[in-house]
Amino acid sequence: MIPSQMKVFLVIFLQSYIVLAYDPDPVHDYCIPREEFTSIFLSCKNSSLVTVDDFVYSGIKDPGNYKHTGFSSIPVSSTVFPGLNTLGMSFVRADFDIDGVNVPHFHPRATETAFVLEGRIYSGFVDSGSRVFAKVLEKGEVMVFPKGLVHFQMNVGESPATILGSFNSQNPGLVKIPSAVFGTGIKEELLMKAFGLNDKEIAKLRKKFVPQ
Amino acid sequence: MIPSQMKVFLVIFLQSYIVLAYDPDPVHDYCIPREEFTSIFLSCKNSSLVTVDDFVYSGIKDPGNYKHTGFSSIPVSSTVFPGLNTLGMSFVRADFDIDGVNVPHFHPRATETAFVLEGRIYSGFVDSGSRVFAKVLEKGEVMVFPKGLVHFQMNVGESPATILGSFNSQNPGLVKIPSAVFGTGIKEELLMKAFGLNDKEIAKLRKKFVPQ
Amino acid sequence: MIPSQMKVFLVIFLQSYIVLAYDPDPVHDYCIPREEFTSIFLSCKNSSLVTVDDFVYSGIKDPGNYKHTGFSSIPVSSTVFPGLNTLGMSFVRADFDIDGVNVPHFHPRATETAFVLEGRIYSGFVDSGSRVFAKVLEKGEVMVFPKGLVHFQMNVGESPATILGSFNSQNPGLVKIPSAVFGTGIKEELLMKAFGLNDKEIAKLRKKFVPQ
Amino acid sequence: MIPSQMKVFLVIFLQSYIVLAYDPDPVHDYCIPREEFTSIFLSCKNSSLVTVDDFVYSGIKDPGNYKHTGFSSIPVSSTVFPGLNTLGMSFVRADFDIDGVNVPHFHPRATETAFVLEGRIYSGFVDSGSRVFAKVLEKGEVMVFPKGLVHFQMNVGESPATILGSFNSQNPGLVKIPSAVFGTGIKEELLMKAFGLNDKEIAKLRKKFVPQ
Amino acid sequence: MIPSQMKVFLVIFLQSYIVLAYDPDPVHDYCIPREEFTSIFLSCKNSSLVTVDDFVYSGIKDPGNYKHTGFSSIPVSSTVFPGLNTLGMSFVRADFDIDGVNVPHFHPRATETAFVLEGRIYSGFVDSGSRVFAKVLEKGEVMVFPKGLVHFQMNVGESPATILGSFNSQNPGLVKIPSAVFGTGIKEELLMKAFGLNDKEIAKLRKKFVPQ
Amino acid sequence: MIPSQMKVFLVIFLQSYIVLAYDPDPVHDYCIPREEFTSIFLSCKNSSLVTVDDFVYSGIKDPGNYKHTGFSSIPVSSTVFPGLNTLGMSFVRADFDIDGVNVPHFHPRATETAFVLEGRIYSGFVDSGSRVFAKVLEKGEVMVFPKGLVHFQMNVGESPATILGSFNSQNPGLVKIPSAVFGTGIKEELLMKAFGLNDKEIAKLRKKFVPQ
Repeated sequence: MIPSQMKVFLVIFLQSYIVLAYDPDPVHDYCIPREEFTSIFLSCKNSSLVTVDDFVYSGIKDPGNYKHTGFSSIPVSSTVFPGLNTLGMSFVRADFDIDGVNVPHFHPRATETAFVLEGRIYSGFVDSGSRVFAKVLEKGEVMVFPKGLVHFQMNVGESPATILGSFNSQNPGLVKIPSAVFGTGIKEELLMKAFGLNDKEIAKLRKKFVPQ
Repeated sequence: MIPSQMKVFLVIFLQSYIVLAYDPDPVHDYCIPREEFTSIFLSCKNSSLVTVDDFVYSGIKDPGNYKHTGFSSIPVSSTVFPGLNTLGMSFVRADFDIDGVNVPHFHPRATETAFVLEGRIYSGFVDSGSRVFAKVLEKGEVMVFPKGLVHFQMNVGESPATILGSFNSQNPGLVKIPSAVFGTGIKEELLMKAFGLNDKEIAKLRKKFVPQ
Repeated sequence: MIPSQMKVFLVIFLQSYIVLAYDPDPVHDYCIPREEFTSIFLSCKNSSLVTVDDFVYSGIKDPGNYKHTGFSSIPVSSTVFPGLNTLGMSFVRADFDIDGVNVPHFHPRATETAFVLEGRIYSGFVDSGSRVFAKVLEKGEVMVFPKGLVHFQMNVGESPATILGSFNSQNPGLVKIPSAVFGTGIKEELLMKAFGLNDKEIAKLRKKFVPQ
Repeated sequence: MIPSQMKVFLVIFLQSYIVLAYDPDPVHDYCIPREEFTSIFLSCKNSSLVTVDDFVYSGIKDPGNYKHTGFSSIPVSSTVFPGLNTLGMSFVRADFDIDGVNVPHFHPRATETAFVLEGRIYSGFVDSGSRVFAKVLEKGEVMVFPKGLVHFQMNVGESPATILGSFNSQNPGLVKIPSAVFGTGIKEELLMKAFGLNDKEIAKLRKKFVPQ
Repeated sequence: MIPSQMKVFLVIFLQSYIVLAYDPDPVHDYCIPREEFTSIFLSCKNSSLVTVDDFVYSGIKDPGNYKHTGFSSIPVSSTVFPGLNTLGMSFVRADFDIDGVNVPHFHPRATETAFVLEGRIYSGFVDSGSRVFAKVLEKGEVMVFPKGLVHFQMNVGESPATILGSFNSQNPGLVKIPSAVFGTGIKEELLMKAFGLNDKEIAKLRKKFVPQ
Repeated sequence: MIPSQMKVFLVIFLQSYIVLAYDPDPVHDYCIPREEFTSIFLSCKNSSLVTVDDFVYSGIKDPGNYKHTGFSSIPVSSTVFPGLNTLGMSFVRADFDIDGVNVPHFHPRATETAFVLEGRIYSGFVDSGSRVFAKVLEKGEVMVFPKGLVHFQMNVGESPATILGSFNSQNPGLVKIPSAVFGTGIKEELLMKAFGLNDKEIAKLRKKFVPQ
């Protein structure tokens, strides 16, 4: 039996999660978080327990299911692929139905290089001077989205399309503009003034993006 | 007289600008860019030419002029205050008319600490899980906006308000969501699908934000 | 009841404190240390337990009490404002009585930008070539003190003065020259030779700065 | 006509190349090196001259020509794709003939994530404790090679294979073990002792790897 | 008695080791890991328990024992000298018998500066363009080995020689080429093709370097 | 003949010096600044012009001349040893006459590891909580001085002593407390109040440290 103080101790841990790990220069070859209690302590498995499977990810062989914009993504950060921990990289597989859209979004902690595995993708980003850089990418082409800038993609081909994105952070973060702005309960008056819309227009947008 | 090849040489330079300077650890005490040709070469003034005035900024004693959302800001990066070069910091003075709004925006390269100099400001940010953290700040309170996350402010007091923001980058960048998304010529179909709006609604939004 | 081994376990923890967190690029949006046991484990609160109040600091609305040099400061690092953890910034409120002095000091881990909230402050720093850069700042002016360099301030106005300092580290550190050199038990002969003073003069200085 | 001093000036420049650009946090959205004289000055194109094509790379749609180990690679660093400059990422396309081998090598400045575009690849790395982690990867699988560690690959399938590698440096560097050790004129006695080989064995290895 | 769940808890910890600590900017003056359980939690000793001996290392006054290449090294990373934790530096003492060889190796996470304490040492490195830079160093000379590049040394004097190496990482790592390549079970066919050797030659090399 | 505009151009350059180079991760193997005009442009020599001598420093075989505190130091930063450029390290040779003193000082941009080559040295540092850590080091012992903290040394043996210090910055900087505080023209009233000394005592100290 666990003494009650110990229980408190454990309960508190279950409400916390593994802490920071900065992207710059690691001080070990690698650091596979311990499988048990990974949500609790920041510690690496003893290297004798590490196997090659800790460094291989097999979950993006197939596309995910399309969401309402005809788009599906499988982001692979250190949360789902612990072998990335402390190594400063992660990646994502993105699939597009015909006309599928990856809505304007940005990654607060990483640059992205996006390689077109299949299809024709209208792809672009906006710099901090509000200038857009966009064009249609063909299979085999690569576009770079600078760190923290808003970017977007749309399948403009006649068949499904796929992109492999790579990031220079183990956890790049993802902020989707429509839901971040209209789905989060920011004061209505502020949004009205910011977008020059009336209360009905804002309400309509909010209804789409506030999680039910 | 300058020989013609030399002219070409100079012309090319005038089309380029001073290059990168990374925020991490500098290798000099400071590096004041040379006043002449600062747009051309990345070089520091000889320290014997540096004076105390290179390290003092006097341009935010007074507010700027309000723009259409009742808001005015004077961002002070290393571009306008060269003394900040290589030192990893910059700042901004923001003034709010009654009901004035600082539209949802983010800084791709910095965390911000915002100190309320005057007034009552509704202030908040959205994390990458689309959760909003917002409240009304009083004079003398400080809010921190984590690196790269969308944040916003609105004067909810009965008199003008002022904020002093500080950044941990000499050039944090600024992406204003409304103009970055609706003012930049992103393909109309993409925006329609992303925001669930029809072509007239998108056109209306664009008209507001595309620079004339 | 806690078994005795557990007690040992806890006692050891209470003698240690939360460990490093480097200032460069975080890998989460934020990381509020768990409120309980913050001195023990390096872990973030589950984000569902985080509230806006974790990101707002209200403790520098008013000045602190003047110390013997007519100076008072309230440093706000991640230790007192945990919301700053991993975000690479912190700040300080400094108040000066008439003629009040902020003694020569430096921050080993940060650049500082100092904004004059009120008053007239003689303010300056010394570079590593032993050159001083100093002048009187007026209300609304900002001076930057490069990372790790000795700086100092004195109220030269006719009423109390206040400064808001910002740092690009969550824990910039503070080394006050007089107490670091004369208040710490460095061998007397070394100080005599270093400052060209005799034993009585060193003893007099020590008496002022060695904590009683 | 260029005056002679000017010529000296230019000649010297043509013998130098564009200097460092560190991978950590940039201070601009991007920095496309000026197309003219890129080998000379470290400066960014004026952003008005930057186009979307500066951010798109089209040179890895097709494989390169196999070399003697049945292997071909097209590394894409900031040298060949200037849009990567200051953004902290780069990539490589690697093609393998049947039984083709990517010899043991490492990248001194980056972690690599390798995605199998086609085929079956035996793939692995050695940690600094001399432990090997290797297995056969199938199409769609990803392996991570930690920063600076020796890794290697071999096509073990029955048809050509292709990998897309991504790096978290704009210029990761590449050190191929066989040519670095046996192709560079390191003193013979040192190599004999280091590998426990006699002078004829070393001479044989050298003949293979010293560039003719 | 420890309750059984607690035992599980502890057992798991003993299989893990202290986690990452990045080399860039620390956020404390220092962080001496707690002596007890250092293999478990990432936490610093309370500074009141820290003594000067935590910052002094006395274990390299004398040489170690020569290994089979007439070489001995005592690497001092944060693992054996905890005072280095978070401070971004470490060092090594290397002793060479007459004709002794430090085999080609590299440090994946650090630049090294090597100071000749005694003797005459042939010393060099190979850059990533496979060019060797080598010469004989005399007592009192210093050579720098850039981060991550292969380097090597040999005593070419007539008496034992000694080097003091310093690193800009608290744990630079060490990859010795002969054992990393031939002592780790990399697939034989791959090594044959990579080095142009037949199976007997590879087998001979392997026998020397695979740990018995 | 150089046209006059060109002369202006060159004159301006001679008043500036080579600019920043940050210590974090380089993007080339090395970057030897071009020998000509190093004070002007930030550019690397073409690697074909680089030789092994660019990476070897021979100037600290012998001690320098003692100054008035019986101390001599030869700091070797990237300024005098260009091979260190971008590699994040530098070093110093320090010699002590009997009773010689290295006055309290700090390096704003680096940790230091100090190895005693010869003699017995009282050596210590002060943390930011004004606690001193000091002891006598014997030949062969190493002490680490954390980044940015005040440290000091004194020869307490009966013969001259020598130290080799290493730094994790190519240009660590050096601030000597006595001259930084008393030799730089900081306002007299400020120093009087900061050190609790009268005007005569301050004047006496200043006379010693203000450069004549």
